[in-house]
Amino acid sequence: MNSFVMAVGQWPVSSEKGENLERAERFLRRAAREGAALCLLPEMFQTPYELARLRASAEEGIGPSIERVALLARELRVHVVAGSICERAGDRFHNTAFVLGPDGRVLGKHRKIHLFDVSLETVNVQESAVLSPGDRPLVLDLPFCRLGVCICYDTRFPAVFRFFEERGVEVAAIPAAFSRTTGAAHWHLLLRSRAVEYQIYVAAACPAPDERSSYVAYGHSLIADPWGTVLAEAGEGEEAVEGVEAVIARLSAERLEKVRRELPLLAHRRPDLYAGWR
Amino acid sequence: MNSFVMAVGQWPVSSEKGENLERAERFLRRAAREGAALCLLPEMFQTPYELARLRASAEEGIGPSIERVALLARELRVHVVAGSICERAGDRFHNTAFVLGPDGRVLGKHRKIHLFDVSLETVNVQESAVLSPGDRPLVLDLPFCRLGVCICYDTRFPAVFRFFEERGVEVAAIPAAFSRTTGAAHWHLLLRSRAVEYQIYVAAACPAPDERSSYVAYGHSLIADPWGTVLAEAGEGEEAVEGVEAVIARLSAERLEKVRRELPLLAHRRPDLYAGWR
Repeated sequence: MNSFVMAVGQWPVSSEKGENLERAERFLRRAAREGAALCLLPEMFQTPYELARLRASAEEGIGPSIERVALLARELRVHVVAGSICERAGDRFHNTAFVLGPDGRVLGKHRKIHLFDVSLETVNVQESAVLSPGDRPLVLDLPFCRLGVCICYDTRFPAVFRFFEERGVEVAAIPAAFSRTTGAAHWHLLLRSRAVEYQIYVAAACPAPDERSSYVAYGHSLIADPWGTVLAEAGEGEEAVEGVEAVIARLSAERLEKVRRELPLLAHRRPDLYAGWR
Repeated sequence: MNSFVMAVGQWPVSSEKGENLERAERFLRRAAREGAALCLLPEMFQTPYELARLRASAEEGIGPSIERVALLARELRVHVVAGSICERAGDRFHNTAFVLGPDGRVLGKHRKIHLFDVSLETVNVQESAVLSPGDRPLVLDLPFCRLGVCICYDTRFPAVFRFFEERGVEVAAIPAAFSRTTGAAHWHLLLRSRAVEYQIYVAAACPAPDERSSYVAYGHSLIADPWGTVLAEAGEGEEAVEGVEAVIARLSAERLEKVRRELPLLAHRRPDLYAGWR
């Protein structure tokens, strides 16, 4: 890994696709001005996380939303993890993040593997009624780091981060849309603990809360370092400029190396023993 | 699992073995009075966590320290995870937790697998210079729950909790001796996140800090529920009665079942997919 600047975008996702794309553009231009090499957009960044409306927002292949972000990536010479959109693939629909290179090309995509089917008192969602799951996390070699991408609920599953570890991931970029309930209980806990136990940088983007929405997101997009320290964090919209918050931090290669050297969790794994535990 | 009361003991471990055993006895008697069915003692509960002195404190087989706790377990009719002591096994020394049944018999023991070899600015410890590692976490079927036992640094290793998950563990009992540095940074984070991601109760015992010691422990012994809520927690000695703090909580089977039903992380695992990720 080489040190670089990362930016995470947050805004309240509205039902106007065009307005959300305007906000993505404002965020990307601001991030590029701040020197970001890698930008992250939230889960469902161009349509509200409302299951009944997801399919109507879907795009197939490189649709107009991803095309617009790709043109910006190329113009601004940045890498972008384009949070997620509802992707149509034949008669299936996926919750898909596209990773765009600074030439505007799609470097890879991640389809959310673990669909959010929960029945909490304040959150009742059956994502699998509308979407189909992906089958593999995404790991990419960028010029400045090895990147892992997973989406929201995927983060709760240890196997995803074991996959990242086995492939040497240094930075996890996580588009998400945690609810207020699960966010208040688990957002910081989960993201910081993944950073600490796998000794990686973790960046996560969540839409800002919109009180008028049927699904109120948590906000608090953040970047945590491998010691679990939150380097930068958004609030719930109060810091927004032109409707957009940008969480920006420098990810230091020296810091990553220092944590892994002083508290050598990765070197202390015992795969020789673990193989006998099956 | 059936609901039951659990107690976690905390005290500043002194260089007088007899004094520490007196404190263990006071804790166990208090826990039994409060109705505890399962009691947990800290890592190295009868000798300070100072590597140079560990071997001199070692006992072989069922030595006098474990024998004394076993007699108390039998008298009080409680299960005890007797934190850890330095166990001698021939020419090897281990950091070993003994689990005692209410008949005073040893139900199992866990030898710390991942030895704490770290070189942080404020904590420089090479446990492997003095101790040999164990090779397998301990899982036991108690009459009221399936129990997993690991020690301190083991907690940082996902494979240990995968082992627990594969064997249906409901309660993890963790004797520990986190330092102030790593405790302030990671104690609550690590314990609460293990509870949340594996949907188990987590109880952890740490000695209270002793400013005169060369290794100042963190204290803050706690019990967390499967939602990550801390049900009970010790401070740093300020609540001690006769030199001992007792962290006591009721572990509810209904609560465990409710969390696992409403946020079905365990049911949402995809071993069919994960097998193909190797």
